[in-house]
Order: sequence, then C-alpha cells, then structure tokens
Amino acid sequence: MSRALNDHAGGTLFGVALNYQGLLNSHLQSFNQPPYQKPPTQPVLFIKTPNTRNQHGAPVVFPQGVERLQPGPALGVVIGKRASRVSVEQALEHVAGYTIVNEFSLPEDSYYRPAVKAKCRDGFCPIGPQLVPAAEVADPHALEIELRVNGERVQHNSTANLVRSIPQLIAEISQFMTLDVGDVLITGTPEGRVDVHPGDQVEVRIRGLGCLANSIVTE
Amino acid sequence: MSRALNDHAGGTLFGVALNYQGLLNSHLQSFNQPPYQKPPTQPVLFIKTPNTRNQHGAPVVFPQGVERLQPGPALGVVIGKRASRVSVEQALEHVAGYTIVNEFSLPEDSYYRPAVKAKCRDGFCPIGPQLVPAAEVADPHALEIELRVNGERVQHNSTANLVRSIPQLIAEISQFMTLDVGDVLITGTPEGRVDVHPGDQVEVRIRGLGCLANSIVTE
Repeated sequence: MSRALNDHAGGTLFGVALNYQGLLNSHLQSFNQPPYQKPPTQPVLFIKTPNTRNQHGAPVVFPQGVERLQPGPALGVVIGKRASRVSVEQALEHVAGYTIVNEFSLPEDSYYRPAVKAKCRDGFCPIGPQLVPAAEVADPHALEIELRVNGERVQHNSTANLVRSIPQLIAEISQFMTLDVGDVLITGTPEGRVDVHPGDQVEVRIRGLGCLANSIVTE
Repeated sequence: MSRALNDHAGGTLFGVALNYQGLLNSHLQSFNQPPYQKPPTQPVLFIKTPNTRNQHGAPVVFPQGVERLQPGPALGVVIGKRASRVSVEQALEHVAGYTIVNEFSLPEDSYYRPAVKAKCRDGFCPIGPQLVPAAEVADPHALEIELRVNGERVQHNSTANLVRSIPQLIAEISQFMTLDVGDVLITGTPEGRVDVHPGDQVEVRIRGLGCLANSIVTE
C-alpha cells in the first residue's frame, strides 16, 4: 500500500546529472575536450534546496526574466534507513520506496556543476503524488518513464537506461556523505528535454508509480 | 543578548564562493581565459547539505582516502524574516543576526561550481557558538576575522573586503529564490586557505561574535 509522501518530508533532495545513457553519449565528445578531458568518473550531484519542493497538482511558476524552462522527469528514490558507506549489495535495503520527481531547471550550457540559480527556483521540484514502497516495485530498473505536455508525449524512456543503477548511486554517494531517512535521490532526467511555457499542463508518468501533474503559470 | 543557535536550526546553508576581494583578484587572470572568459557576474553559490551541520567543540573528521582538508572561516548571516525579491535597501531587515561558520572543504581546482563531494562531507560545517542579534553588531562589514590552527594565526582578514556586501547577497539571491527563516548565508572565505591535519585544533574568531573551535580527528 502506498503512503502519502509527507511521511518523508524534509529530507535533502539530491539531483544526479547525466545519468541516462543517451544523454551521456550525446555529450561524450565535448567531455573529451578541454576543460574536462574525460567524462565524469563520479556521479555529478546537485542539490534541490527546500524552497524547490512542490507537489502534485500545484502550479510551477515560469520565472520573470527567464527565457526558457524545462521539466525534468525522473524516478525518485526515497531513503528509508540511514546509509553511510553501504555496499552495492546492501544498498537497496536502505530504500523506503519510489516516487515521481519533476526536476525543473533553466537550461544550462555546462552539465558538470549545475548552478543553484538554474535549479533552485521556488517550486522547481514537484514530488509525488505517492511513495510506493520498495516491496511493491518489482524492478526499479525497468520502469517506463514519460513526459507529457498538454497530453502529448514528448519524452519517453526507461530506467533500464540509467548510467548508474540505484544501488550504485547509493553506494557511491554514501561513501562520502551520510544519506538520511527521507532524503530523495533524483536519479536523472533522460535526454531530449523540452521547453514548456505558461499555460502548459505537464505530466510525468512512471509505470507503477502513477502520474505527477503540474501546470505552468506566470507570476 | 545572544541566543543559542538551535533556535534557527534546520535552515538551508548557502555558501558563497569567491567573495573576498583578495581571493577574486588572485583568480582574475584565469577567469579571463577559456572556458569562462570573464569573472563571475553573479554570486557563485553552493549548498552545504544538512549532514554537514556541526557545532562548536565537536570533532571534524578528516575523511579516509582524502589527501587535503581546508577550513573555511566565514561570517554567517542568519535570516530572520522570509526574503523574496527584497531590495538592497531593505535586505538587512531580513537578518536575525550573525554567527561564525567554518566551511570545511576539500581543495578544488575549479571555483565556479563547487562540488558536493568536496563540500558536503558529514560534519563539514561547524556553526556557532552563538547567534548574535543584528542589533548588537554595529557594522557587519567591519569585522576582523581570523583562523587559528593550534593557536597560531594563519588567516586574517576583515569583512570590509567582501566582494558582495551582505545586503547585495540577500538582494541578489532573493531575486531568484526565497530565503527562509533560519537559512544561513556563508558570506565567503578569505584568500590563503590552509591545510589542516588530524590532531589540529582549529578556531575561527570574529570580533564581537566569539570563537568557534573544533578539533580535527581521524575516523
């Protein structure tokens, strides 16, 4: 039985950049040039601050003075048991369950270190509507994920294409920082991000997790 | 009368990079080359996640597998009234008071987008010991700040040398995200960061705010 997500409110929201294979592939050439010289060897993390928290059915504000806004459909992994230096094998024991995240962002040139200004606008991280317990998700690496804008499917992928699996992410991140109960790993947005505009209805659907719907509004 | 800092626990910790004039000057030449081409035009922000919170008198762990660790003495500005799009003129009305922060970090090559892995280790952000109310701080831009390691002064500067003043930071950040009660702006670390090692006693002193002392320990 799924729980309301509020049971786990207040945790840190960890974004993972470049975690879909198609997205990473499309940037490999530029990553092999200066200043990077090589693709990232570690998960590229960013933080969605608490002011970004938003929920199913609530509006997402298209900020004044901004040219472009992009939704970021993602599978959210909610930590259920404190994780410090856990192994890949034990990582999933620390997962309470799964939810849907729409990680809104202003588009950026650089993928290496996403900017607070692009990622942390108020309301830029709808989460929900439900936390589906881990036991009810047969395989979190085989979930169809799609983004619909005004009813039309504009992104379509599968968590089978994650670069780093959920256990790998938990193991790698927990090597250098403690993940706490209620923290959420936003496991990545697939390639093909699209622009949305005020008036648009945006839905992220993940098979088995439901639908997270938000409307884009002006201030 | 100063308050215990716990009254404001739980807010977001915002780091500001490159906010001392001497530090910025020392990097101007590299910023004028690719890939940046110019110095930052906006505050360079990073987040210290909740797991980094630490306090006066508590140990700071030198992480396993890490070569270098650096303290980061800084003036902390605690928000006392929600701030969204406030002007420079009104910004200080949103400050509850001031405290000391030691923003520990692994040294990084890039200053533009500090990495979660370098900044967000457990316990890497001692704060305190006290929140000194704004009314008791005559001029937050004229505070002597120093770092002592094992009793020896190794960094010495003044908040007079901030690149962006406290009102400017509050105004600029609140243009794109809401600052909430209890949020802390870590206003920057001066040039001349030093390495510390297990066994070291580290103190940050800011005139009028007291002394934030921590010991470096092995795991």
